[in-house]
Order: sequence, then structure tokens, then C-alpha cells
Amino acid sequence: MTTPPLIPSSRDKLLFTPGPLTTSLTVKQAMLRDAGSWHSDFNELIADIRDRLLKLAGVSRATGWEAIPMQGSGTFGVEAVFQTCVPFNGKVAVLANGAYGERIAQMLAHARIDHIVLRTPENVPNDPAALSACLDTDSAITHVAMVHCETTSGILNAIDVLGPMVRKKGKIFIVDAMSSFGALPIDLEACGIDFLISSSNKCIEGTPGFSFVICRRSVLLAAEGCARSLSLDLLGQLRGFEKDGKFRYTPPTHILLAFEQALRELEMEGGLPGRHARYCRNHQTLQRGMHRLGFRPYLSPEVQSPIITAYHHPAGGRFDFKQLYDDLADAGFIIYPGKLTKADTFRIANIGRIFPADIEQLLAAIEAVMRHRFSK
Amino acid sequence: MTTPPLIPSSRDKLLFTPGPLTTSLTVKQAMLRDAGSWHSDFNELIADIRDRLLKLAGVSRATGWEAIPMQGSGTFGVEAVFQTCVPFNGKVAVLANGAYGERIAQMLAHARIDHIVLRTPENVPNDPAALSACLDTDSAITHVAMVHCETTSGILNAIDVLGPMVRKKGKIFIVDAMSSFGALPIDLEACGIDFLISSSNKCIEGTPGFSFVICRRSVLLAAEGCARSLSLDLLGQLRGFEKDGKFRYTPPTHILLAFEQALRELEMEGGLPGRHARYCRNHQTLQRGMHRLGFRPYLSPEVQSPIITAYHHPAGGRFDFKQLYDDLADAGFIIYPGKLTKADTFRIANIGRIFPADIEQLLAAIEAVMRHRFSK
Repeated sequence: MTTPPLIPSSRDKLLFTPGPLTTSLTVKQAMLRDAGSWHSDFNELIADIRDRLLKLAGVSRATGWEAIPMQGSGTFGVEAVFQTCVPFNGKVAVLANGAYGERIAQMLAHARIDHIVLRTPENVPNDPAALSACLDTDSAITHVAMVHCETTSGILNAIDVLGPMVRKKGKIFIVDAMSSFGALPIDLEACGIDFLISSSNKCIEGTPGFSFVICRRSVLLAAEGCARSLSLDLLGQLRGFEKDGKFRYTPPTHILLAFEQALRELEMEGGLPGRHARYCRNHQTLQRGMHRLGFRPYLSPEVQSPIITAYHHPAGGRFDFKQLYDDLADAGFIIYPGKLTKADTFRIANIGRIFPADIEQLLAAIEAVMRHRFSK
Repeated sequence: MTTPPLIPSSRDKLLFTPGPLTTSLTVKQAMLRDAGSWHSDFNELIADIRDRLLKLAGVSRATGWEAIPMQGSGTFGVEAVFQTCVPFNGKVAVLANGAYGERIAQMLAHARIDHIVLRTPENVPNDPAALSACLDTDSAITHVAMVHCETTSGILNAIDVLGPMVRKKGKIFIVDAMSSFGALPIDLEACGIDFLISSSNKCIEGTPGFSFVICRRSVLLAAEGCARSLSLDLLGQLRGFEKDGKFRYTPPTHILLAFEQALRELEMEGGLPGRHARYCRNHQTLQRGMHRLGFRPYLSPEVQSPIITAYHHPAGGRFDFKQLYDDLADAGFIIYPGKLTKADTFRIANIGRIFPADIEQLLAAIEAVMRHRFSK
């Protein structure tokens, strides 16, 4: 037993993970109430959240858009789109360069929906040429799905390049924007997006318990009769809200109360531009500090998102990720293991209620562990 | 505008609804933390919750049982069982005498699973003779599903009579025990139950955000390859827990923290017998008081659960449920509308962190509204 390099902390640990995130105390305190999900003031809360989500997305009901919360994690929201909106003779082209693209393929396999996966290596963005060729040759394809920020590596895929291609070919475009919505600017109209999915516990900095879909109403309505699941029926969910303002099935009331508070705090930070700026400052602080400590990022800067960064394990035999993880956890910092198939990496996310000063504290802790545990 | 009969209250309203419920402050305070869902202490929390659920169900892993939490509302948990466990050539007999039995039929229709619905009127328990005849004549049936306490009316269906019949015929038995588990004694072995579903925000008095399934491991494992949904794949969820102790997809971390606290508070109350006793006291207080006020319960006493009670609208033209609801809500009490197809009723549930004294306060408020608004 060696002495740990840092004094153990028993405060709540700061989460440098891609979600659940560290949230503000005021967001959590909003959960100290039991709201009646049947009562009118809860209907108003739901309506307010749906309106604010549309506003945050830069779209409106008047121009044909809807915001539909769905119980469960982000994955449930992504799957709800496919389970509801792909006709029985439909076919989905999935662009994949990480675990979340692959997860879409898994969903389609479970639902017995025909699909093709267009893969690029984990450090290479989704390939427009491959998609173009695929759409030219396979006329069965009805939908194209991709992940905006693939947190497997932290890579940013070019929805603004791929989306207009999809639209031009008349296909329906589905974007998993789980870890980018609310912090990275997304022009839904210009990108030709039909369905965008994110969740309560990502860049809006709420607590986990539901996802939401921003979508074109007409495209959703056209999918009438295709739903393969009752719980995950996105059109049924919309109709429920329109019938009486309520979730069809028990909503996570406390999580919704927290989410509305989180949306207010996002506004107080200057909306999406303000949050984007803070995450960029966090990310720059992290990249500069890790560079100083000798860590090499996995991605090249032009495809790196300001959300989560994968770093190579240092060369040489002494480094042990589990030791670094455990020491940092003891000191109050939770970082994230790697998920890449072909490189030994670990990951540090910089989203949630954390600031450049928190990143500096994390860096100081990493430096102490590296010096104490792994230096010659 | 008439003066309201009661002084308006701005405290948190007490919920006399079948869920979400009023929970204790300490349960809600457990949510004032951001737990890292990837960290080891969260794995311990999940393991502890799964163990406590098995103990509460009176079964054990050693005798072949599993407890599997699933993100989403109770409906998601019920649907997860069907989406995962019915083979493609399977057929489900559904016993229905209310909205939740009908909801199971809706789920099966969405999943294109063959099924038959055995209906009884809303005030008559599921019929053993009809089930017996059905199982004798239709050899295609592989599964039987029913609702223990149907909150549409508050009726209690006899799982202890129907279950052994299902077992004797070698069929798989699925029980929606959403509003009964944790408060009403259920002998899973004696009832021949294979899958029992409940949720975080019912009689365990947690906050809403996940459901859970108590099931026979061997029966679940035998369903390998049938899952039609990735998110709702119950076997996949179990394998996730067994692989690394984690939820496959983001768990509602705050809701799980609250749930463990709720389980502790259930133990402090004397476990299931203690909670059952309080709910019975609540229910007796309610029934006596409503009788005194001239309200007639919809169900006969021998089939009435001590969970939720439906009352007929009083005879005569002056009664207006919306007025009663609104006045009570202003005074801090939320009751529940009726859901019956053939009778004008409203409902009052007596579960959650409420006590006979709260029921007395509700009764006094109802009396005041009745006198002020509807008396001649």
C-alpha cells in the first residue's frame, strides 16, 4: 500500500463524464416537490418545457415543428423515432463511427427494420461520398440516421454537409444530437433534419429521466400506423399531449421540474451562445493543460468537439488507467474510461455545471497522480 | 363568482392519486446529489436495490429469481416483459376489467403479438371459469397476463386463484402488480408468477422514473432472441447488470438514490406488513368518512382494494366533479377523476406518504365543499 497522492475528499464528486452530469444545486432543489401529474399546473409545466425546447432549437410550431418528451434515457428517445417512424418496408442507412452509431444499428436489428451501416474509422467523420454513392445505388433507402457528436471518441460529424444531401434525395433525416443539443449551434432547417433527439441530462444540464425529440410534425403524422411499441410510440405521445396536455403514462415529475429550472438557468447563462462559450473555455483549458502534462489527444483538432476528449494512454509501461481513475475518484473527480476499439484511451468530458476553475483543479490532481504513481 | 368554501393553500398539495404519490421529504432530499452512473459506488447502489426488491418480494436469487429495474414509467416495464419474452409464434390471454388490462392488449397489438382478451365488467373480478375454458380450448396460448389491483375501479383480482390454474396448464404467468407490490402480500411461488411488474413511485413511495420486474431467471433466459426492442430488452438489461453491475443505458440516478431511501423507510415502517396496515387504516378512515358524507363506493367491499376507491357521483343534479376537484386542489388536496366506462365516478387513492390524519383533513374539506357548493 502506497500513500495516495492526494488527500481523499468526501464532497460530492465532480463528473467529467458525458452524462449524467454535475448539475447546479438549484436544479436539484427543484426536485424537492411532489407534483401531481394530473393537475393543471403540471400541464402548464409540460407546455412550457415543450415551448422552450422549440425555442432553443430555433424552430417553431408555426413552421411545422414539435417537441416531444419521452420517458426513459436518451436511447429510448432514439429508439422511439425508429419504432414509430419507419414503415414496414422502409430501410435505414446508418452512418457510424463509434458506439452510438452502432447502437442505432442494434435498435434496427431488434425491430427487424432493414438497414445498412456505412462505417468510417473512429477518428474519421461520417463519409459524404459513401452516403452519396449509397443513396444513388440503393433506392430502397427511406431514412438516413447519424450521430452529431459521437462521444465514443468526441468526434463531430458534419450534419450540415450530410443533411442537405439527404434532403436533396428526398430521404428522412434522423440526427442523434444527444450530447450536442443546447450547446452546439444546429440549424435544423438548413441541415434538413426531420427528427433530432437529445436528453434531459446533457447540455441542458438537467437530471436524467427522459429524452426529447424535436421533429417535423408532417413527417411524424405520415408515419401513422407504423408504431411497433406502445410505450415508444412517438406519435401516440404527441397525440396524448394534444388531447389533454399530459403524458400518456406516468411522467418523471421531479425530473421535469428540474428540467424547467435547468432551461431557465441556460437562459440566464445567455442561452446556447453562452453555454457554448463556457464549454469551449472548459475544453481549451483542458486541452492546454493535458498537452502540458504530456497527454496526446486521439482526434485531430478540426474534428474534435468541445464536449468530450479522448486521450491516448501515455507511452511506456507504468501508466495504469484504473490507478489514475481511482486516485482521482478518491480526490473527488470522476473521469471516463475509453470506449474505442483500436486505441487505448481514456476520456474527459467538460460539460455540466463545471467551469474552467474546475478543469484546473482536475488538471492539478492528474499532475499529482502522474508524478506520484507513474514517474520514474 | 362565489367565495370558495375553503381558505386557499399554497403549500405542496397532498396527492390522493394512484401515483406519482406524496413522498417523504427525506426521500426527495436523497436526490440532492449527482451520482456518477459509471462509478463503483453507484454499482453498489444498484446491487443493493435489486437485493432489497427480491427480499421485499419474498424470493431469492438462490431459488432462481431476479429483480430487473427498467428506465421509464410502469407501462415501459410491463411492455418490456411482452416485447422480450413472448416468442414470435406465442399467444397471450389477457384478463381485463379496466384500463390497465386494456393497455396490455394495446401493447400486444402494437408489437403484433397474437392475443385474446377475456373481459369482465369493471366491477367484477377476472373470471377463473372463463380462463379455464380458454386454456382448455385454445392450445396456442403460451402466456397469461392480468392486473392485480386494477386502479381503474380499485378492484382486486385474485392472482392466488388464477395463478395456480395458469401454472397447472404450463403457461407463463405475467402479473401487473403496479399499485399493489410493496403493500399487499403476494406469494409469488404460490401464485405461480413468472413475471411481476411494479414501479418506483407506487407503494414503495419513491419518485417516478423507472419500473422493475421480479421474474424467474430460467423463464427469462428461455426467451433469448425474442426481443423486439433494444431499450425494452429485459434480458439485455439483466445481462448488462451481470456484466459490469451497470444499467446498459443512462439510469435515472437521482430517482434511484431516492428509491433506496424509500426502501429504507419502508423497512423502518415494519416492511410490507407495516405499510399494509397503514394503507388499511387510511382506507378504513376514508370509507367511513365518505359513507358519513353520503358517498356510495362503486365496488362491493369483498373486491375493494385498500389502495384506491371509486365513488359514485351523488344522485341529484347539483354535483359537479370539476368544482369539487378545483376547490379541493385550491385547498391543497388533489383527488382523481373517474376512468370507468359505464358509471360516473371519481376516485380517491390512499397510498403514499399520507396518514389517517391527512384523510380526515381531506374529508373535512370535502364536507365543506359539499355543503357550500352543492347543498340545497
